[in-house]
Amino acid sequence: MAQKPSIPKGTRDFSPVEMARRNYIFDTIREAFRLFGYRQIETPAMENLSTLMGKYGEEGDKLLFKILNSGDFLKDVNSNDLEAQNLPRLTNQLCEKGLRYDLTVPFARFVVQHRNEIQMPFKRFQIQPVWRADRPQKGRYREFYQCDADVVGSDSLNNEVELLSLIDYVMRKLGIRTCIHVNNRKILTGIAEIIGESDKIVDITVAIDKIDKIGIENVNAELREKGLSEKAIESLRPLLELDGSNEEKLEKLSDILAGSEIGMKGIEEMKEVISGFENLGHSCGLDLDVSLARGLNYYTGTIIEVKALDVEIGSITGGGRYDNLTGVFGVSGLSGVGISFGADRIYDVLNSLNLYPEEITGNVKALFINFGKEEAAASMKCVKVLREAGISAELYPDMAKMKKQMQYANSEGVKYVVMIGDTELAEATATVKNMADGTQVNVPQSKLVDVIC
Amino acid sequence: MAQKPSIPKGTRDFSPVEMARRNYIFDTIREAFRLFGYRQIETPAMENLSTLMGKYGEEGDKLLFKILNSGDFLKDVNSNDLEAQNLPRLTNQLCEKGLRYDLTVPFARFVVQHRNEIQMPFKRFQIQPVWRADRPQKGRYREFYQCDADVVGSDSLNNEVELLSLIDYVMRKLGIRTCIHVNNRKILTGIAEIIGESDKIVDITVAIDKIDKIGIENVNAELREKGLSEKAIESLRPLLELDGSNEEKLEKLSDILAGSEIGMKGIEEMKEVISGFENLGHSCGLDLDVSLARGLNYYTGTIIEVKALDVEIGSITGGGRYDNLTGVFGVSGLSGVGISFGADRIYDVLNSLNLYPEEITGNVKALFINFGKEEAAASMKCVKVLREAGISAELYPDMAKMKKQMQYANSEGVKYVVMIGDTELAEATATVKNMADGTQVNVPQSKLVDVIC
Repeated sequence: MAQKPSIPKGTRDFSPVEMARRNYIFDTIREAFRLFGYRQIETPAMENLSTLMGKYGEEGDKLLFKILNSGDFLKDVNSNDLEAQNLPRLTNQLCEKGLRYDLTVPFARFVVQHRNEIQMPFKRFQIQPVWRADRPQKGRYREFYQCDADVVGSDSLNNEVELLSLIDYVMRKLGIRTCIHVNNRKILTGIAEIIGESDKIVDITVAIDKIDKIGIENVNAELREKGLSEKAIESLRPLLELDGSNEEKLEKLSDILAGSEIGMKGIEEMKEVISGFENLGHSCGLDLDVSLARGLNYYTGTIIEVKALDVEIGSITGGGRYDNLTGVFGVSGLSGVGISFGADRIYDVLNSLNLYPEEITGNVKALFINFGKEEAAASMKCVKVLREAGISAELYPDMAKMKKQMQYANSEGVKYVVMIGDTELAEATATVKNMADGTQVNVPQSKLVDVIC
Repeated sequence: MAQKPSIPKGTRDFSPVEMARRNYIFDTIREAFRLFGYRQIETPAMENLSTLMGKYGEEGDKLLFKILNSGDFLKDVNSNDLEAQNLPRLTNQLCEKGLRYDLTVPFARFVVQHRNEIQMPFKRFQIQPVWRADRPQKGRYREFYQCDADVVGSDSLNNEVELLSLIDYVMRKLGIRTCIHVNNRKILTGIAEIIGESDKIVDITVAIDKIDKIGIENVNAELREKGLSEKAIESLRPLLELDGSNEEKLEKLSDILAGSEIGMKGIEEMKEVISGFENLGHSCGLDLDVSLARGLNYYTGTIIEVKALDVEIGSITGGGRYDNLTGVFGVSGLSGVGISFGADRIYDVLNSLNLYPEEITGNVKALFINFGKEEAAASMKCVKVLREAGISAELYPDMAKMKKQMQYANSEGVKYVVMIGDTELAEATATVKNMADGTQVNVPQSKLVDVIC
């Protein structure tokens, strides 16, 4: 029976034109990673659920795609759990594997599993899709690519400067005007200390992470709900409204956080990172933003988030330093810092600003018209010579009507149409039509390489 | 709790060295696809199970990885089916999606779903991983890459010639000596007709596909088991033992199959494909092999299989013509022909013959030694200039002992170590050590780009 085919919601097919654009983005990022000395790894799409579960919070566990065990998947199912519809327990009995949810946990697993083969500091990059059972919506997909660069095994803040420089490089190459927002988790901890609510640091960061979306009054309401005193909320306010240059903000922060050792450490780190970046000279703006917290709670130092200036789309790249990435897999004391380029959001930005260079179409250079068996045989020989010279070329496979073949040439966006009809066949020549201006030249077949370029 | 991390059996991590090698293979194949005018698409890792089920035979259905429905996955489970442990029915109730098993069915689905946007003939290529719940063994993985090129919407045998030419191009670029084995499914059908066992064509092709592995006597035993008469088996024998040049084989076949219209059609097609390929001049051998059937039963014309000459590894590329790929999705009459490069087997071949060019290590060109804060700041400026010139470079992030930094330089295989110590800092120079021959030169920092290349 004929089925009307479709794909799972939240997933996408990519056409040749879309692929050319996406490859341009991935190639740009990959080339930047290489120039900066990061080395590529790949990990399997499937990880053991024991590797993934519990790493992304309770909500994250639910958003993991789990893979039904092969063969008799009922074998390990407990009938009491089935009776009780205990979904979490049944999930573990039905499924051993899941699809990766990000590239960070697989990287941590990789570092621990291969620690005897790895030279520290280890600078790795990884460009692979991840899967999340999120509710699909505009700009949010269930399958999307992450492009991550991380360094583990080095505390040096030079790594932070390098990563900011890398962001600047990529955004400049792609032509996206951006501002890099930075903060330091230690500054946030210092703030919580100073206002006397150290135990509420998680609530505070989660709430102030929303400041751009819901405004300061709603953030305060949320903090009140979480049990922060009015005094604490009031003393937070000036901090969330800091302005001026980065240097000015750091000055003011130094006054406010003078009583917090960890807060002052955060300021010191921030100063070194900002001045390191600024000394190198870059095109991205860099903005110290103490409202920046990011949802994830594993960052311990620098926090990075990148926003496009000309499109409203949220963060297109983010990252930060984490001090105990691999602890959960039994190797502690490894500090790391990394960033993740959101390729799908960058794709949306380039699409809406139409920032693609013209030459990235991926179109074939030359299409040879098919005039019949002998002409086609001669054409194929010419096609072969062009390809050997690195020029993409093809013969229209069927001896179809001229109109149909030209229609194909147009829809494929070829630059040249080459005709070897009976006259050309007899003379060992070819007629080359430039599709951009319509001009035609007749050349010896042996000279085609010089004309088509 | 610390976990000892591992990955699911049949899957692999790839280290930077392995990635450099794999990228070399993928880049070579991708570049060849482009030169030959194929256009890239990508499809989601997950397809609806309704798209995948029933396309790979009963065995294939079992080997699909299925994804547990999100949320309340028990919602649609029928208690009678649960009681009866009806696994196939329960699978459908627990899972709506599965991981793609190959690239051909998703391609057929793509063509039907996007038929109004596609210009025929459609030449597409696709390089993506596929997943199969096969029993893992040496050289067989549960996650592996396929690299497919197909043309749909054209009957012309020029497409077959093109694909053979593409195989030749890729194998030559990779330096793998190969023989391309070809056959035509119509010849096999003709044979079945002539020996009077037309209804046994599937049994015959499945059995003779094993001739290389189990020998002619065991094939005959299997045919006997399947109910072929002794007479039929005896009349098969000379066909399976054809020898001589392709032309000689085709001559003999013409005599034997003279009474079969479809058989003679197959011979005619084979002649055109072989002479088309040979006229172009290639380096791969091409061998008409009437024992070649391939397991899959959807081929209707040319069948292609490529074997490496210098390694025992089975087929490293295969393909053929199929006449009704999209029929199952409601669009009939579209003929197609395609090939699939087995990237993982090609990787094994290149590894065992050590055929990688030296320059594909992916190593960083220049490592700058970290002598302290000011020296590092000067080094980072030089690093930035090198990167802008397209030269990969990095600063060792920490001010570690010289020995440790040099050890890193060695393990990363960098070509140059650059030192900006206090003397160099004062003089605005840098000392460049060539790691291959140990020579050192001192140059102005502004001239580093000329020395490091």
